Amino acid sequence: MNVEKTKDKQDYLFKQVYEYVLNHIERKEWKKDDKLPSVRSLADQLNVHRLTVLRAYQLLKQHNKVYVKDKSGYFVSSEQSVDPDNTDLPIISAYSQKNHLSDIHQHQVEYNFSQALIDPNLLPNQFLSDYVKKVFDLHPKVLATYSTVQGDAELRELLSLYFGKQYKTPLHKDDLLITSGSQQAIHLISEAFVKPRDTVLLERPSYSAAIDVFKARGANIATIDIDQNGYDLDQVEREMKLFKPRLFYLNPTFHNPTGITIPPEQRKQLVDLAEKYKCLLVEDDAYYDTYFDQPPPLPIYTYDTAGIVIYVRSFCKYISPGLRVASIICQSQATMKSLLSSKSLTDNGSPLLNQKIFLHYFSSLRLQQHLEKLRIALQIRKEIMEEELAATNWKWQSPEGGLNLWIELPNGVSTQELYTKAIENGISFVPGMVFDPLEESTSFVRLSYSYVNEKQIREGIRRLVDITK
Amino acid sequence: MNVEKTKDKQDYLFKQVYEYVLNHIERKEWKKDDKLPSVRSLADQLNVHRLTVLRAYQLLKQHNKVYVKDKSGYFVSSEQSVDPDNTDLPIISAYSQKNHLSDIHQHQVEYNFSQALIDPNLLPNQFLSDYVKKVFDLHPKVLATYSTVQGDAELRELLSLYFGKQYKTPLHKDDLLITSGSQQAIHLISEAFVKPRDTVLLERPSYSAAIDVFKARGANIATIDIDQNGYDLDQVEREMKLFKPRLFYLNPTFHNPTGITIPPEQRKQLVDLAEKYKCLLVEDDAYYDTYFDQPPPLPIYTYDTAGIVIYVRSFCKYISPGLRVASIICQSQATMKSLLSSKSLTDNGSPLLNQKIFLHYFSSLRLQQHLEKLRIALQIRKEIMEEELAATNWKWQSPEGGLNLWIELPNGVSTQELYTKAIENGISFVPGMVFDPLEESTSFVRLSYSYVNEKQIREGIRRLVDITK
Repeated sequence: MNVEKTKDKQDYLFKQVYEYVLNHIERKEWKKDDKLPSVRSLADQLNVHRLTVLRAYQLLKQHNKVYVKDKSGYFVSSEQSVDPDNTDLPIISAYSQKNHLSDIHQHQVEYNFSQALIDPNLLPNQFLSDYVKKVFDLHPKVLATYSTVQGDAELRELLSLYFGKQYKTPLHKDDLLITSGSQQAIHLISEAFVKPRDTVLLERPSYSAAIDVFKARGANIATIDIDQNGYDLDQVEREMKLFKPRLFYLNPTFHNPTGITIPPEQRKQLVDLAEKYKCLLVEDDAYYDTYFDQPPPLPIYTYDTAGIVIYVRSFCKYISPGLRVASIICQSQATMKSLLSSKSLTDNGSPLLNQKIFLHYFSSLRLQQHLEKLRIALQIRKEIMEEELAATNWKWQSPEGGLNLWIELPNGVSTQELYTKAIENGISFVPGMVFDPLEESTSFVRLSYSYVNEKQIREGIRRLVDITK
Repeated sequence: MNVEKTKDKQDYLFKQVYEYVLNHIERKEWKKDDKLPSVRSLADQLNVHRLTVLRAYQLLKQHNKVYVKDKSGYFVSSEQSVDPDNTDLPIISAYSQKNHLSDIHQHQVEYNFSQALIDPNLLPNQFLSDYVKKVFDLHPKVLATYSTVQGDAELRELLSLYFGKQYKTPLHKDDLLITSGSQQAIHLISEAFVKPRDTVLLERPSYSAAIDVFKARGANIATIDIDQNGYDLDQVEREMKLFKPRLFYLNPTFHNPTGITIPPEQRKQLVDLAEKYKCLLVEDDAYYDTYFDQPPPLPIYTYDTAGIVIYVRSFCKYISPGLRVASIICQSQATMKSLLSSKSLTDNGSPLLNQKIFLHYFSSLRLQQHLEKLRIALQIRKEIMEEELAATNWKWQSPEGGLNLWIELPNGVSTQELYTKAIENGISFVPGMVFDPLEESTSFVRLSYSYVNEKQIREGIRRLVDITK
């Protein structure tokens, strides 16, 4: 097993070396026919094994980026196959940055099963408009005023009481930071705690946008498998021991994309492991309130006494995506201080208007009524999707909350081919590979049942099943 | 001169090595009594001169971070003077991040000359509230909808026409990206184009929040002096040649903090230099509309035919800080593509509501009326501040726009002592050192006349002058 892990580590290092060299060539710091550093000297400089450098050079040769002359070494090839989009770019981007999901969402389709978002028709639009008017009556200068970097104190006070009551764990308003959506929260955490080449642990599969953030940061990625039993905690400990990761980004409740919920006993043990190996746990809890029968187990942060957990809680998905209000809970003052610095450099604080509108709606009775209705609507949509799929030999575990089915296609169906055909037929979904930090192909796909109505679910799924026949 | 420059470069490298070692010690990767790598091996590994490593080790010794044993090398000291705020931090932040201005603004004072913001009483609060109601009538589901990553198409269309007309340079809506304030714009640009250890050019002095962003990114900083004649373009060329900077961040119109405006002929030549050395120009133009007598010269980006300039234009300061709407103009498709990736990873797009409110106000006649009134109000405040200072021997160039006076205090007045005394007396300003990328002490201070009313300016400045006596 350890041999296996060491091999993984070598793989990461090898990719780093490959990219290091390629980056120098793309930036023209090493030009056509320049000699590359010797294997030995680059190995010394980057503090890696010579075989790792050699392997990287060989792959660069295979990709025609470099060539070998006699036996005197490796040289930069004359024709670099430059990214055609990049031809007019004065300088090359800092890191290759990609948001895979947002590429998929660019397709306009009739049956949208790729967006893990709530159908706007299920959201409380009219009530929110009313609250907006109230906000302007109460705060006539709200548009002339900046929020503090940490977020509106009144909103943080309200949320700290709300969480304290809901999770039976008292909180102070200064344990909270308001962000512009959970995407920004993940990005802030990455910026505050991850340096290029630091290792980050991700679940496999994991939330695609988070994978993209940590990769864009230049982090090495190590993975923890997640299945119906949760994690293999021995694997978690091995990875923490071997890679000394800076953080473990996890999504333990109605996990996206699989729908799995990590059981309470693993939650507690995970905190102990994190504390032992000084590895921050970043608990992304976007789906907590979207349960069908009963509330999920308490969040991992409620077991934390050492300030090792950062809890990311988004509301915008199921209240008002347009407001972009999410919160971070973090009970270590020093960790919060780092996050605040990062937030102040990123945007100097989220807009006050949005926080005040959210505050007034969140503190109203309407919210609970809305949530109850929303849960029922989501459950009905899930059941309709499952009904339509019942006759197929596709496999999935019925989730107890969240917005997605994680479906294994039968042998012989290529997810990539199906995706292309589906888009042609006006149907979108997300191929499982997008959620794999290691980007290997898989027979899984994610179908979201939250964005389109019952009728569209029936029609779209029928059409999708048809094109696999 | 070149010796001088090489020395500068050595200084940067030396600091990098110092921080590299300190970071390993702080993260406990090198523990108490561990031997540091030999000078030779670290020099090889980091690809720097051995003297540079030796100098860093000697300073670490001087700071009691390491000690020397016999002649066998350098070892980690037992007692590290840990930042007291960091004692409960499970892991150390990625980079030391600081926002100097936001530290200063934490003081509650009676006479606020530190905020380069418009007094909320000068902003069109009532009109904006009315527009908000209109927005909800027009877009009842605005809060249920995400903006695209690039920003609302209707708003980009409007702004592209507006800029095209104002600067007589046609623009397409896809040349624009909407950001959450100019702080986010600078941060996005840094993330998209700067890697740790890349060199960034900054004016000296420069906008403090931008300095902080690039330093937090891990960039090396080189500086270009700015004075009443603008830049010394020979210096610009030397620095571009020597350091191959990724970008030059500049604020050429009513420069913050000095108030200087770069003349048109230098603007054109700057674009040529940037193109020659493949150095992006990041033109931050937050004060364009706050001129007193006549509009400033055309922005630098209007001279750009190679897509080498990124133009950052904020409106929120003088329309509605609470909305946080700013825009980036970028006419290179490839550069825009990198910015869009970064924006999508950062927050997946700015809130739609804020963009729609801004759009409706911006397209109204009210805007021009508001701007005319605002310019007069700012000029009056500037003149009052100058009147109160006329009897002193403080020196400044009267600016032709913007929000600040950049004042040189007479010999013998320590800005740091004055700052402490001023805060005690309920007055805030920004010591000049905060704007120096090299953080050297200076006899300059920045006094903003935009945030407090005429009466407060008179009283506050009298009090400030009194305490220097």
